[in-house]
This record gives sequence, structure tokens and C-alpha cells, in this order.
Amino acid sequence: MGGKTEVEFHVFINHDGRQLLGPRNIILLREIVRSGSVRTAAMILHMSYQHAWTIIDEMNQAAPHPVVVKQRGGIGGGGAVLTEYGQRILKEFHIIEAEVTRFQKRLNTELNL
Amino acid sequence: MGGKTEVEFHVFINHDGRQLLGPRNIILLREIVRSGSVRTAAMILHMSYQHAWTIIDEMNQAAPHPVVVKQRGGIGGGGAVLTEYGQRILKEFHIIEAEVTRFQKRLNTELNL
Repeated sequence: MGGKTEVEFHVFINHDGRQLLGPRNIILLREIVRSGSVRTAAMILHMSYQHAWTIIDEMNQAAPHPVVVKQRGGIGGGGAVLTEYGQRILKEFHIIEAEVTRFQKRLNTELNL
Repeated sequence: MGGKTEVEFHVFINHDGRQLLGPRNIILLREIVRSGSVRTAAMILHMSYQHAWTIIDEMNQAAPHPVVVKQRGGIGGGGAVLTEYGQRILKEFHIIEAEVTRFQKRLNTELNL
């Protein structure tokens, strides 16, 4: 029969029961950090600019503080940045994810599914 | 500002990179075990009988062995049961979920999001 059975964990950070960060929006956040632009991030992820902003708006509404804000002016203009709160929550997400990945690896070596 | 920020983990069991068990189909599996009927399980979960079978078919196809099979005859007929493999994988899922829940609780007490 063969094949490999493995465990996988998805990490979510919720605020007041609403999803704040999860596997979907985290990818977008990372690209925004990397490029400093929602437009570039959306392009790389093959999503529309509008869809990217829908995801950001939902995230900002679920959060106790805005996560991403538009950056006015500057070269090219129309950039976007993570707020201090956004940076903090993203960092926490990465720490948790790293812990979970270790846990996942351990389980996948121990388990015999 | 207030509100409560918490971590949540979703458990998936994959086979050869395809999702075998996850938060969505596990609910259906549990109801099938409880009622011994796909029709009853679907009704309780407010999904159509057809949709329930689509979920089961996808699961059976992703798995190395069938997870749920139709049970012919018997009182009322048309029941469905978990195979031995299905029972084993469901049990493993519960064990993993319990471990992850403990981990989640620990993180939520330690973290200060």
C-alpha cells in the first residue's frame, strides 16, 4: 500500500473569538513586509489588489489595533506598512509557528499512522 | 481596548500530501460513529446527504484504505460504518488533538498577546 501519513497543524491567532491571523492572511502579511506594498504582495500571490485589501480590512477589524496601514507619500506612494502592533503579533505568530513545527516533527517521527 | 487574544491550532492528518482528516470532516465522522447513519449525521450538521457523501468519498480517496463504508441490510438499512482503518485513524486523531489542546492551553497561559 505504501504512502506517507503525516500530521499537520495550522496556527491561528484569534481575538475575541474572531480570526486575526491564520495560514491565509499570514502569507499576505509576509509579502507586504517584504515588498512594502499591497499591490506587489497581491501580484506575487496572484490575487487582486481589492481582494488583498478585503483580507487586510477583515484583519484590522478583528484586531484590537490596526495591523496594516496605508503609508502616504514617499517614492511611488501608496505603500503599506505593518503597525507596531502588527509587527508584534507577526513576531508572536512566528515564534508559535516554530514551536508547533517542532512539535509536529516530533509527532511525525513518533507516530506510526 | 480589552478583549482576549488566543492561539488556536487545527489538526490535519494527511496522506501523501492530501488531506485525509481535518476539522471539517472529523465532525461528520464523529456523527456517523454516533448515529451509524450518514443521513442522520448530515441532518444534524445541516448539510445535504449528497454533500456528506462527497466529503466521505474525498476522504476515502485520500486514504490508503476506505474510512467509511456503506452497511447493507440491517434494521432500517442504508447505514454506514467506519472501517477498522477508519476507527484507528479517528482514534489517532483524538490522541493528537488532546495533546495539541494541552499545548494550546499552555501557550495561552504563557503568552501575553
